[in-house]
Amino acid sequence: MRPKLEVLKTDGAARLGRLTLTHGVVETPAFMPVGTYGTVKAMTPEELEGLGAHICLGNTFHLMLRPGADIVDLHGGLHRFMHWSRPILTDSGGFQVFSLKSLRKITEEGVRFRSPIDGSDVRLTPEDSMDVQLKLRSDIAMALDDCTPYPATESEARESMERSMRWAARSHAHYYRERLRGGRDMRAAAAGDSGAAAGGDSDAAVAGDSGAVVAGGFGAGVAGGFGADVAGGFGAGAAGGFGAGAPRDSRAITGNAGAAVENADSPPGGLFGIVQGGMHTALRLASLESLMQLDFPGFAVGGLAVGEPEEERLRVLESVVPHMPADRPRYLMGVGRPEDIVAAVLRGIDMFDCVMPTRHARNGHLFTSTGVINIRNSVHQTDLGPIDPDCGCYTCRNYTRSYLRHLDRCNEILGSRLNTIHNLHFYLDLMRTIRAAIAEGRLTSWATGYLASRKQSAD
Amino acid sequence: MRPKLEVLKTDGAARLGRLTLTHGVVETPAFMPVGTYGTVKAMTPEELEGLGAHICLGNTFHLMLRPGADIVDLHGGLHRFMHWSRPILTDSGGFQVFSLKSLRKITEEGVRFRSPIDGSDVRLTPEDSMDVQLKLRSDIAMALDDCTPYPATESEARESMERSMRWAARSHAHYYRERLRGGRDMRAAAAGDSGAAAGGDSDAAVAGDSGAVVAGGFGAGVAGGFGADVAGGFGAGAAGGFGAGAPRDSRAITGNAGAAVENADSPPGGLFGIVQGGMHTALRLASLESLMQLDFPGFAVGGLAVGEPEEERLRVLESVVPHMPADRPRYLMGVGRPEDIVAAVLRGIDMFDCVMPTRHARNGHLFTSTGVINIRNSVHQTDLGPIDPDCGCYTCRNYTRSYLRHLDRCNEILGSRLNTIHNLHFYLDLMRTIRAAIAEGRLTSWATGYLASRKQSAD
Repeated sequence: MRPKLEVLKTDGAARLGRLTLTHGVVETPAFMPVGTYGTVKAMTPEELEGLGAHICLGNTFHLMLRPGADIVDLHGGLHRFMHWSRPILTDSGGFQVFSLKSLRKITEEGVRFRSPIDGSDVRLTPEDSMDVQLKLRSDIAMALDDCTPYPATESEARESMERSMRWAARSHAHYYRERLRGGRDMRAAAAGDSGAAAGGDSDAAVAGDSGAVVAGGFGAGVAGGFGADVAGGFGAGAAGGFGAGAPRDSRAITGNAGAAVENADSPPGGLFGIVQGGMHTALRLASLESLMQLDFPGFAVGGLAVGEPEEERLRVLESVVPHMPADRPRYLMGVGRPEDIVAAVLRGIDMFDCVMPTRHARNGHLFTSTGVINIRNSVHQTDLGPIDPDCGCYTCRNYTRSYLRHLDRCNEILGSRLNTIHNLHFYLDLMRTIRAAIAEGRLTSWATGYLASRKQSAD
Repeated sequence: MRPKLEVLKTDGAARLGRLTLTHGVVETPAFMPVGTYGTVKAMTPEELEGLGAHICLGNTFHLMLRPGADIVDLHGGLHRFMHWSRPILTDSGGFQVFSLKSLRKITEEGVRFRSPIDGSDVRLTPEDSMDVQLKLRSDIAMALDDCTPYPATESEARESMERSMRWAARSHAHYYRERLRGGRDMRAAAAGDSGAAAGGDSDAAVAGDSGAVVAGGFGAGVAGGFGADVAGGFGAGAAGGFGAGAPRDSRAITGNAGAAVENADSPPGGLFGIVQGGMHTALRLASLESLMQLDFPGFAVGGLAVGEPEEERLRVLESVVPHMPADRPRYLMGVGRPEDIVAAVLRGIDMFDCVMPTRHARNGHLFTSTGVINIRNSVHQTDLGPIDPDCGCYTCRNYTRSYLRHLDRCNEILGSRLNTIHNLHFYLDLMRTIRAAIAEGRLTSWATGYLASRKQSAD
């Protein structure tokens, strides 16, 4: 179904919203934990749900290399592959390819690069990226963009942005064309399967994706089929633990189900466009205008958090975000530190993703209300207190800094788990705090105090 | 308190029992997952409980090197350190030291070895091992033994066994002497702390550890204090997940509680002796007779699973176990494969530990009802079935072989977690099956079929 944002309240430029996607509702402003290889590192889906994650991100670049899109497709998409029933956003793979630098070559067609896994030559065009993301069956797919490096001259940034816009148009055309064809294929497959509630992909069939949401069809199939099955599985898993006594839920995935039928009950979502243009306001606005011709159901700001100073990033947001459609979600890609998220929400951003909480956790960097601590520091060796006395997460309720330092020193998996639980709780709790502040019309005063305290702890 | 076994039923030589320890009851025959560094690798304590583990094992050798016994002592023992409220058995460190081979030197005093962590010179005497295990505050401690290598001549095995027996006597004397002194220290500490329900260690004060169980004293302290606190924490953690909405339980551990008071409510348990003697029946019987002079509350068979053929191991068990006291638990150290456990239960063994299920899991070797599979095998690449269609564990209910293979290839932590859940479930479920078969007096017929099927799948 087409992603649909309902803005419940505004507070200055900040918005409180409900983003409805194929696999559920995301409260915004939202943080998306990153699940690179079909797993948010060290976490189960049930744990992520318990922490309050409404949506997570999958990386097209990584998944197309391992296990390959066809393996995920065989499962009926990324949700089933990784056993996550809530929404998923997939990126386009562009950012990771551009990070390869010397190993990749950009042409008008797309990018070619040497696989860091096996050295093979891989092609990623806008059409390839859409094909992969359609197989992943994400709720939100992203257009392939050319991520402008920092710094870039006006002409470099223009050339890059204009390529991104041509690729955005190709992404859009291919994504909806293939969705339509996928719907036809699935109709044909479903005709031979009397029990399946599969219909055509009604949303994709609406030419130009004008925003109409058609009830029934896939929506009904999801509620009665896969969705219900997964909900039962999660419930049993979360409440009953892993014990032998827990009732065995009926398996959604078996070796007997045909791939076409698997696909039929997990329809893809919508495609977001990505604003580029480097640090150049006029280019950013031209990029946004170009994207708005295509009626994307949501827009991202890309090409930030690539090394630019904070003031530059905020200046770009302040010049672009006010022109973005008020009724569409706004996603700031790859950001960032807690204070960066707060600053961007103040400027009207709704969605965020960043590897920082999970990667920091595995490196022993833990977020607290008074700043980041390094659990490897010897000062924690005999510390019987929790990471943060103000934190109510599972880790802080049950484990000492001394124990967490020990686990880290011994490279114990449980250390990565407990640290990740804590850091993700910190981020997701921050988003809850932000949403509550917007709801109560006190975001600015709260944020002023918050940003001042973060700055102080960093000094 | 003194470990106390109640034999509920026998079936041939096999016994169904309830082993009551300081931190709870263990149903026997029991398998103890190995928690080397104060964590059963990749698992939380709640997950272990959910899988049906009644007791786990901690390694004295590893914990004395990292984080050091004093750090664990500062937490009030290994239970609090690792947030595990059920019983713990600690080994003596002997087996690991003997595995170091060229890096260690055995004398009558004990062993000296070069630390594999930092190269420092470390001493481990029977008294040292007891001191460490008392600080770990395990429910069951093990005497330091000289683990006879395989093969060994009669005279080599005799010399080694006799040293083990002298060390067992020193272990016994030191363990109970220090417990008694610890009780006095704790009484003195508790006198200054009006709220603590700490008394002397009544059990330790009974000279010779004759088996009397004194009610009140520490028992009461545990039930009303730490025990209740931990139970609440587990409950909230298991039912509510890690979400922010879960009620924050009061912290048992703070930076303010004195170490003496911490110690006072988690009393240590009892010491087991270890039968040695290599593959020589007469030596084994002499070893047992020697240990029985000391009134250990339980006995282990050591020096097996060191490379000997299966028939030799079973012959030793058949010659020794019938002479072991029927009212004391019998523990076969370091064993083993599922079929080894079944064979040993048939010969009267009650307790087992082995790293096999957890280590195999991390290496992608997964137990199934038809044998061990290697998830790295390419045959699983597109397999949408679970590890074992007959298994009801969390992993088999929710994930495909294809996904597990992918996680393993990407070295994802979740892969180790899901594999460990499955393998531990397999072992703990086996123990449940064994106990049910004994309870119903059909162990022999069940075991005959089981062992035949395992043999077939291994061929």
